[in-house]
Amino acid sequence: MKACIFKGPYKIGVEEAPTPKISKNDVLVNIKVAGICGSDLEIYRGKRTVKTPIIMGHEAVGIVAEKGGDVENVNIGDFVVIEPNVYCGICYQCRKGRTDLCENKVIYGITRDGVFAEYVDVPSNFVWKLPDKIAYEDAVLIEPLSCVLRALRHLNKTILPSDNILIIGGGPLGAIAATILQHMNVNVVVQEILPSRIELLKKIGIEKVVDTSKENADDIMKSYLEGSKADYVLDTVGNTASFSQAIKWIKPGGKMVVMGLLGLKAEVDIYPLVRGTLQIEGSVIYLGDYFDAIKLINKESIMQKLRKTITHKYKLDECQEAFKTAEQGRGIKVAIEI
Amino acid sequence: MKACIFKGPYKIGVEEAPTPKISKNDVLVNIKVAGICGSDLEIYRGKRTVKTPIIMGHEAVGIVAEKGGDVENVNIGDFVVIEPNVYCGICYQCRKGRTDLCENKVIYGITRDGVFAEYVDVPSNFVWKLPDKIAYEDAVLIEPLSCVLRALRHLNKTILPSDNILIIGGGPLGAIAATILQHMNVNVVVQEILPSRIELLKKIGIEKVVDTSKENADDIMKSYLEGSKADYVLDTVGNTASFSQAIKWIKPGGKMVVMGLLGLKAEVDIYPLVRGTLQIEGSVIYLGDYFDAIKLINKESIMQKLRKTITHKYKLDECQEAFKTAEQGRGIKVAIEI
Amino acid sequence: MKACIFKGPYKIGVEEAPTPKISKNDVLVNIKVAGICGSDLEIYRGKRTVKTPIIMGHEAVGIVAEKGGDVENVNIGDFVVIEPNVYCGICYQCRKGRTDLCENKVIYGITRDGVFAEYVDVPSNFVWKLPDKIAYEDAVLIEPLSCVLRALRHLNKTILPSDNILIIGGGPLGAIAATILQHMNVNVVVQEILPSRIELLKKIGIEKVVDTSKENADDIMKSYLEGSKADYVLDTVGNTASFSQAIKWIKPGGKMVVMGLLGLKAEVDIYPLVRGTLQIEGSVIYLGDYFDAIKLINKESIMQKLRKTITHKYKLDECQEAFKTAEQGRGIKVAIEI
Amino acid sequence: MKACIFKGPYKIGVEEAPTPKISKNDVLVNIKVAGICGSDLEIYRGKRTVKTPIIMGHEAVGIVAEKGGDVENVNIGDFVVIEPNVYCGICYQCRKGRTDLCENKVIYGITRDGVFAEYVDVPSNFVWKLPDKIAYEDAVLIEPLSCVLRALRHLNKTILPSDNILIIGGGPLGAIAATILQHMNVNVVVQEILPSRIELLKKIGIEKVVDTSKENADDIMKSYLEGSKADYVLDTVGNTASFSQAIKWIKPGGKMVVMGLLGLKAEVDIYPLVRGTLQIEGSVIYLGDYFDAIKLINKESIMQKLRKTITHKYKLDECQEAFKTAEQGRGIKVAIEI
Repeated sequence: MKACIFKGPYKIGVEEAPTPKISKNDVLVNIKVAGICGSDLEIYRGKRTVKTPIIMGHEAVGIVAEKGGDVENVNIGDFVVIEPNVYCGICYQCRKGRTDLCENKVIYGITRDGVFAEYVDVPSNFVWKLPDKIAYEDAVLIEPLSCVLRALRHLNKTILPSDNILIIGGGPLGAIAATILQHMNVNVVVQEILPSRIELLKKIGIEKVVDTSKENADDIMKSYLEGSKADYVLDTVGNTASFSQAIKWIKPGGKMVVMGLLGLKAEVDIYPLVRGTLQIEGSVIYLGDYFDAIKLINKESIMQKLRKTITHKYKLDECQEAFKTAEQGRGIKVAIEI
Repeated sequence: MKACIFKGPYKIGVEEAPTPKISKNDVLVNIKVAGICGSDLEIYRGKRTVKTPIIMGHEAVGIVAEKGGDVENVNIGDFVVIEPNVYCGICYQCRKGRTDLCENKVIYGITRDGVFAEYVDVPSNFVWKLPDKIAYEDAVLIEPLSCVLRALRHLNKTILPSDNILIIGGGPLGAIAATILQHMNVNVVVQEILPSRIELLKKIGIEKVVDTSKENADDIMKSYLEGSKADYVLDTVGNTASFSQAIKWIKPGGKMVVMGLLGLKAEVDIYPLVRGTLQIEGSVIYLGDYFDAIKLINKESIMQKLRKTITHKYKLDECQEAFKTAEQGRGIKVAIEI
Repeated sequence: MKACIFKGPYKIGVEEAPTPKISKNDVLVNIKVAGICGSDLEIYRGKRTVKTPIIMGHEAVGIVAEKGGDVENVNIGDFVVIEPNVYCGICYQCRKGRTDLCENKVIYGITRDGVFAEYVDVPSNFVWKLPDKIAYEDAVLIEPLSCVLRALRHLNKTILPSDNILIIGGGPLGAIAATILQHMNVNVVVQEILPSRIELLKKIGIEKVVDTSKENADDIMKSYLEGSKADYVLDTVGNTASFSQAIKWIKPGGKMVVMGLLGLKAEVDIYPLVRGTLQIEGSVIYLGDYFDAIKLINKESIMQKLRKTITHKYKLDECQEAFKTAEQGRGIKVAIEI
Repeated sequence: MKACIFKGPYKIGVEEAPTPKISKNDVLVNIKVAGICGSDLEIYRGKRTVKTPIIMGHEAVGIVAEKGGDVENVNIGDFVVIEPNVYCGICYQCRKGRTDLCENKVIYGITRDGVFAEYVDVPSNFVWKLPDKIAYEDAVLIEPLSCVLRALRHLNKTILPSDNILIIGGGPLGAIAATILQHMNVNVVVQEILPSRIELLKKIGIEKVVDTSKENADDIMKSYLEGSKADYVLDTVGNTASFSQAIKWIKPGGKMVVMGLLGLKAEVDIYPLVRGTLQIEGSVIYLGDYFDAIKLINKESIMQKLRKTITHKYKLDECQEAFKTAEQGRGIKVAIEI
């Protein structure tokens, strides 16, 4: 089969690879559409180390091509989305109900071969059957959407239309979050510095985008936040610059959820943190959020906004170009058709 | 001055009463519009005991007619909304930050004379200045809206558009809550049994209203909840019937906030409560929620929906008719113009 | 093998039963000590319906006698405690991290044969290996202790030595909870009405026990709560009487966790619930709490207090007498040696 | 009167100052004992800027010497503790119940003259009457103890004896926190690097103290944490070093409360924060915690441990020496008798 293989920083390409064999609890998925995620780019840039060569990618949907003898939840021909973080179910964290923190997590495209390929083997409990009427391109958003829903669940506070929410970073996660929160009629402000991204964000309907590299950024922030500050911050970047903006614009007593991993370290201002009793909380992958994401994928009212976040589509053979587009921030979500 | 005075169950009427004198920290408010609340009806029905005679009412807006010598936050002529639960600021609960639970709370229309009158004296910290451009009728919703926002804050969980929320009771609080949550594009279902109310709820735009007195109620509930159950329940009724519905339709692990006081006692089913680890939480008045309510009152996008909850307006002289309309559930929010 | 079999209300006895066969993922445990739980008594009394005949019991420890071919986590001869609520791992609740709410839960002694027998088959992930130095009698407390730890986790608030905690019911769960909280030097008050239990509670070191059937109960409550009320209530009873006491003695803003299932319905007072913004939350079984319970079982400082809650031991052949003792409240935890 | 006056970094001394005049809502307190806090040291070191000259100090107890005409809650001769953060009660944060975040906070010894003086004027609602039987030295701990209780309340999770808690920094706050948690029989580990402090901590009964500057620190940490990691971290330091230790030793899913302000910035490791969904929360002063602190001050069982944290006492005339002792970490809590 053909697969997009990573061999080292900026070295990827489509090559022939052996079609995976499945065991009795697995299904073999014929991938239809996959998506490039920020963590794929971290690997691509060499900032996150993986064993090479590796087939990249973890966001994907496809059709069940084959199934093991013990598989009961899906059939050959079923349209499925893959849940690409396979937890063990028996470690300390899993037993505490925190499968998102599984100590033995197997991650497609990171700790094992991924989904940017014609076929991939998946334990049957990690494929979710979807209605056939859903478009492949819509369904490929389920994985990143689940990440966003989880991050919002980490707020663990009621969000109301009177709240201000600052989203830092207008990449796929930021754009999806902004779309959902705008759909909820909450006052959402997105900070982004890449001109290409800013333009795309506006194009897909994000109303309040602030370029923090501009001189008048503070004035615009104040105006967008209606003279107040943010009740909540969602940081999809995760570095010193984003922490600095977050803490600058959050209300004392406010909460910030971090899902970005761009920096290895981020500096945090101690005085506003302590004296403002700020709350900072990390969020990673999901915890049953596929249920909610799949519900939303079925709602046209929100999907007509969400699917706009897929700004580019490439064929598997064009995966180098797809990665370049994504890495340079020329798109929001970049999809790969296989 | 003229005032609507309560003398005993179902005995109210407009009479002449002395215009209040103010002390140096008070303002005298010339009431413009007031609203009838469920707790006013409880007094009217004789279910909640108050010292009589008493001027009724606690929801009101008006114009500052006079102010005490030490008052700095408002001026004569200012348009204000009254915060009618005056907390002491120094009891155990107030010092713990829970002014909603103040042990020495003074409540207009319940523990002292209320606002259904031409004039009322209010401690200056309990009037909030409003922009002149706001309509009186819109502003009179600030108090009940604040109650609803507080109840939603008590959920203390992220609400997402994939969530199902069941609201029990389609009176003023239920209708306001449904309007806000629908505005947030959450899946909202309202249970109501009064035909007059059901009709009004649909008329003001509430999409999913279920008459639980009808035979097919369960089927409609299932359909409205998309085959699932409610993630959250807001009970604006507060009796055995509402608890029974709440527990019937809530997901295990779900949360129910109770703001209704219709029953003195309510029966709760122990098995689903314990084995479903349900959460039940009371909510009363507000805790700084006027800030948020006033923000929303300024947003036309939500107000064009919210103001529809005021279905009836009466003059002060018609207060008997106003109470009848409200008590019989012929309206949603019934306003009194003074 | 010999087993204690339930055939209908108050009808139990030791009979010969087939030794269970195990599949490749199971272990066969040779039971050493088991414990009688309140839910066993509910079955015994006929208040909770089960398919009969059934081997009773779910609290047990023993030695691995046999293991299936795929079992890796334990070996023959290992000392283990059984986790008797077998969750599926793949339903909505399990995937949301709430295995305590599993929709397909298999419960020993309730939905399948239990542990009051010489041998029981258990899926290998539901036996936990224990150090050999732990006494069987100590280890049999792991299951009920886990239930108590989970209920305390449901408080989800910091407990401090300045807090008052009211525990309603001095049976096994109440006694274990009181012992732990006293060990934490929190001010704990236990309400119990059975004279036999009251005496036992004092004997095992519970300092503040109130007999609410006595005339001076209110005075003693006030004195024990130091003139204040309870910050938290743990209700191990779960009926109208316990709810009434809970709501009478809880502070406004306080939280009550319910783990008792004695009543099918309980009446709750609406005014204090709503106007005191009380929180009521159910708690059932555990969610990874075996880790914590096993840690505590290894700490002699707490075990020298906790093991006193086992007030009676019987042989399997004496299971009728054991149930009578437990059912009449003549003991606290009643153990069965097998 | 005599007062300890700060004029610039490391420049303090006792001088004559005018005895404060009181207004009708104030009381004049004749200070008996005061305590030096870490924030006093930050000012002393010139790291936190204040308007000079200023009378230092905010932790103090004394006797009411005079009272204004409107004061009702205390009488001349009453023994009182001062609450030195005077909130306004009417700003956004105060009305939201967050007086700890008051936007107009007046802080003794920081934004106005403090308590290291013979007399100080205090608004009557900010003095708390104490029983005469309490020793002055015990009562001076109420303020820092309240800070610690608040920080523990910020955990907002049940603490159990099976939990590991890491406290970073063994100064007054760390020592008080460790004493309380040890009293609760929780497994507490304190990190401290000053040899003088380490010795004192052991002397006052803190069992597990780790010198992280030592080579074998990691091994000792592992042993003290019983091979696991910390469920909760209380950081009383607040700089890059403390954040680094916190994140190194906290469990994924764990929570860290920061009350130290030693660094202006602290670096945080993004990967463990995000992928471990860590929670970091600041905590400042208190929110009604004086009630709880005063309860504990009345309990000899805990006070016999807590009062040991006062390791040094000086006369007001010796305030230079007192500050040196505190600043060099030669003591834990340093008290000043006036």
